[in-house]
Amino acid sequence: MASRGFCRELYSCIFDYSTPRIALIKSRKVGVMNRLIQLGILAYVIGWVFVWEKGYQEFDTVVSSVTSKVKGVAVTNTSALGTRIWDVADYVIPPQEENAFFVMTNLIITQNQTQGHCPDLPDQSTICNSSHDCIPGFISTHSFGVQTGQCVAYNETVKSCEVYAWCPVENDTELPEPAFLKEAENFTVLIKNNIWFPKFNFSKRNILPNVTTSYLKTCLYDRMHNPFCPIFRLGSIVSEAGESFRDMAIQGGVMGIQIRWDCDLDKKFSKCVPRYSFRRLDSRELDHNVSPGYNFRSAKYYKNINDVESRTLMKVYGIRFDILVFGTAGKFDIIPTMINIGSGLALLGVATVLCDVIVFQFFKKRYYYREKKFKHVEDYDELSGNEEHGSNP
Amino acid sequence: MASRGFCRELYSCIFDYSTPRIALIKSRKVGVMNRLIQLGILAYVIGWVFVWEKGYQEFDTVVSSVTSKVKGVAVTNTSALGTRIWDVADYVIPPQEENAFFVMTNLIITQNQTQGHCPDLPDQSTICNSSHDCIPGFISTHSFGVQTGQCVAYNETVKSCEVYAWCPVENDTELPEPAFLKEAENFTVLIKNNIWFPKFNFSKRNILPNVTTSYLKTCLYDRMHNPFCPIFRLGSIVSEAGESFRDMAIQGGVMGIQIRWDCDLDKKFSKCVPRYSFRRLDSRELDHNVSPGYNFRSAKYYKNINDVESRTLMKVYGIRFDILVFGTAGKFDIIPTMINIGSGLALLGVATVLCDVIVFQFFKKRYYYREKKFKHVEDYDELSGNEEHGSNP
Amino acid sequence: MASRGFCRELYSCIFDYSTPRIALIKSRKVGVMNRLIQLGILAYVIGWVFVWEKGYQEFDTVVSSVTSKVKGVAVTNTSALGTRIWDVADYVIPPQEENAFFVMTNLIITQNQTQGHCPDLPDQSTICNSSHDCIPGFISTHSFGVQTGQCVAYNETVKSCEVYAWCPVENDTELPEPAFLKEAENFTVLIKNNIWFPKFNFSKRNILPNVTTSYLKTCLYDRMHNPFCPIFRLGSIVSEAGESFRDMAIQGGVMGIQIRWDCDLDKKFSKCVPRYSFRRLDSRELDHNVSPGYNFRSAKYYKNINDVESRTLMKVYGIRFDILVFGTAGKFDIIPTMINIGSGLALLGVATVLCDVIVFQFFKKRYYYREKKFKHVEDYDELSGNEEHGSNP
Repeated sequence: MASRGFCRELYSCIFDYSTPRIALIKSRKVGVMNRLIQLGILAYVIGWVFVWEKGYQEFDTVVSSVTSKVKGVAVTNTSALGTRIWDVADYVIPPQEENAFFVMTNLIITQNQTQGHCPDLPDQSTICNSSHDCIPGFISTHSFGVQTGQCVAYNETVKSCEVYAWCPVENDTELPEPAFLKEAENFTVLIKNNIWFPKFNFSKRNILPNVTTSYLKTCLYDRMHNPFCPIFRLGSIVSEAGESFRDMAIQGGVMGIQIRWDCDLDKKFSKCVPRYSFRRLDSRELDHNVSPGYNFRSAKYYKNINDVESRTLMKVYGIRFDILVFGTAGKFDIIPTMINIGSGLALLGVATVLCDVIVFQFFKKRYYYREKKFKHVEDYDELSGNEEHGSNP
Repeated sequence: MASRGFCRELYSCIFDYSTPRIALIKSRKVGVMNRLIQLGILAYVIGWVFVWEKGYQEFDTVVSSVTSKVKGVAVTNTSALGTRIWDVADYVIPPQEENAFFVMTNLIITQNQTQGHCPDLPDQSTICNSSHDCIPGFISTHSFGVQTGQCVAYNETVKSCEVYAWCPVENDTELPEPAFLKEAENFTVLIKNNIWFPKFNFSKRNILPNVTTSYLKTCLYDRMHNPFCPIFRLGSIVSEAGESFRDMAIQGGVMGIQIRWDCDLDKKFSKCVPRYSFRRLDSRELDHNVSPGYNFRSAKYYKNINDVESRTLMKVYGIRFDILVFGTAGKFDIIPTMINIGSGLALLGVATVLCDVIVFQFFKKRYYYREKKFKHVEDYDELSGNEEHGSNP
Repeated sequence: MASRGFCRELYSCIFDYSTPRIALIKSRKVGVMNRLIQLGILAYVIGWVFVWEKGYQEFDTVVSSVTSKVKGVAVTNTSALGTRIWDVADYVIPPQEENAFFVMTNLIITQNQTQGHCPDLPDQSTICNSSHDCIPGFISTHSFGVQTGQCVAYNETVKSCEVYAWCPVENDTELPEPAFLKEAENFTVLIKNNIWFPKFNFSKRNILPNVTTSYLKTCLYDRMHNPFCPIFRLGSIVSEAGESFRDMAIQGGVMGIQIRWDCDLDKKFSKCVPRYSFRRLDSRELDHNVSPGYNFRSAKYYKNINDVESRTLMKVYGIRFDILVFGTAGKFDIIPTMINIGSGLALLGVATVLCDVIVFQFFKKRYYYREKKFKHVEDYDELSGNEEHGSNP
């Protein structure tokens, strides 16, 4: 009997169609209100979610590879070095990096350093009157050597603790101003960027296919007139970011070259283009200027005839250009589309809920309407015949 | 009185259960159609969203760290350098990088450069007949020096403007062909990759736990037979990408070693494995070959007995291998699951809407059905007794 | 006529309000159960999706730029090199990198190498008894030269194949223990990190605005007391990751400095702070220790008076610190909010479905309730008057 009941249930489940019964209230006020709310929700779902925010698309982030090539020559004339020419091999350190390149703009050079004993650079912790002020084996925070415990003359007026170090020690108290290689402003860089969206197996280069070789040989990036030229003048990069190259060259700094690839892969291939923008990445705030700007120390090593090693220490100030590539590609995909449609349909139900609240709580005729909408089903015990149920058994 | 009314409402709200009244239409056609549409939506939600696209998972992208180690020795025999051996310290520049490594394959070497005056490399802008053709202080785009204003003999037939530069200037018009270090094809590289999914605190290495040391000492990556061996032959990397190493070695280039980690963390740890693929990243298109391939300039600095600095300039052509690590991990999470279930349920409502449209608009018996589904509730003013409402007051 | 019918339909569609008819079952059991299920779903949607997982927010991942500056001096005293001081320019190779820095901790130095003939380092494949054991032109896997075919004495007891290589060949069989530059433990590094969330155009630095210069000059990172100090002691980084610096210094290794930026941009600017954590990235597993730790070869090149090039080969062991920056920022956005609300509303429907199943399948009074909820509409052919339909035509 139970199985027969189950069969009937299953039969009914498959072959009967159940649709909610509807009370159709013929009231212009509510009808129009209901449609307006639904229209609003529909407009939001279609206009905002689908058209504006491309809710029908699946997204992927970019995988990128960058190479860069700097060009330019500068001449300097200083008492220490004489007239000297600086080319790419001199001022780009290290010669190649992955997503960045560094251009030297200022320099404190200490030539012919050898390992030995010499007075330390005088500062708060190294100036001394006698050997009692110096502790053998002590390494001061800013020093590049180990104190021997002696107090020796740094120059005619000042005595400082002797250190075992690369001697003579570097004196970085006075930074050349204006910057040593201020001509770097006119150097140019060619940036080649290859991007890939793994999910869609879509790849593109920042040298666009419609660009000719002759154009590339003469063009220079300009936000207005040459927005797709991959050759940049260093000075323009800095000024586009609202900074002064002359100022930045002195202490060095970090510049971000941002390449944004926002691609709608449902559109044409040629519509997917890079957008360049520039931003200074290091802090300019004067109130916490602990090691401001950007610099590092690099050395060239030599050996003399007696096989003694010497080095030229360079405290190199300069601008590191970080090439930050980011962006997303969107392409039609059924999953987000369906999620958004489903969610939108559910939101349409809100219209009915809202209208119900207004009609059945605030309308004058609410008791009349309620009577039509609700069928009160009492519990057995309290059954009474005062409700609408036409044909009780 | 108002509060009493409110109390009754609240009581009713909590203790009454409201369920929509359903018109159960006993029609096989509509019943089966309804179930079929529902089945389709269910199949889509379960099959596609959940099983195929893993809609029940939360996703995270990979954080990666890469080290690489190149091995191999090459011998060259040229008139300029004599017989010379090249090992890792010679051809990998810089000696270590973060997500990349560079292997020199071709070389234009200019030895014993010192700062001084010499004729520039003759080209369109530097060939001259007399000193009038040369502008003191002018820097040509492709030059590495500053013109002095003199016109001097470059060789017996050609005169060019004198420059102040590292002399003699580099002559990069003739590139060795075949490539200088074409033996680099047989060099091998060991790539160690450590990945981490921060959201799930899951980390793994590309050297899988089931691999033995003896295997690692002899294995060589092969897409078919050794897909998890982390040691790659450079020539194989290039040929897997469909390129010719011999050709690429001449001008240099950029190769992408792509490591994809697509991990289903609901499965076993051992199922999360890296997939290697290879792609050439620089442009091969002949029509915009502005600085094709990949090269950079690097210099070694020397000092002679008289403390005069000289350098060996190397225009280094080679292949930079960028190791691009990407991928996503998925793990069961309640949020996306519920979003997808909710969205799926809402989509199920579409079945009723569709069937309603068909039944109540296109069925012959639509007026009969409509009568059962809809209860027309007229506005007071137009009240008439021609609708189903058994017990009007 | 058809168009008149259509007009009436349209009129009805716009001005009629259709609301589902509800059977209001006055049963405390079901009513309370229904409300409890709804409350549970609501609590999940509001509490978990919105409050906990911030379902009302749009998310973006971080774009980051890092610079680092190491400080410290070490003295070594070995028979080969004598007393020697090591400063930043000596032990950081290359002098600058983008998202990483390398500190040398151990060293195998081979001085005065020149290109020439010498016996190879004796191992399985190079030890020989006579010239018959050596193959001219053969390059052994671990060798740095090409065999000439001769068998010569390596020392008094062992003979090995002669190679053409940089001579004398490096002997890396014995690694200094304890590490050569074990003092590197006390070196410090200043890490500057600039982050940017492109979607929200929000940028911040890891040197927080409320930090003073004097604090930065003396502070040292400590997870408990100075969690926002950007200056780290190398030894502390390693020990925070649960490793021993002394052990790691011998073979080298890769450490990850993880900076996590999880920012809620709906909150105050000052609440968006970096969180540092440390992790060892290279394998410590002893069972596959093929080239364990981290090392690379670097060379310094010299020329003697006769213009013969020599080099100092350094097999540099050390710790590479990879700075891994990751994180997400969330900000209120209407799209995910609406998706989650829509999905939540749809889930609320589950309550009715669940209660319906319980009431209409398991309640004693189910037949009575069913009668109230369902209106059976038979197909014409099988029409019979035994169902509730008060006013048939």
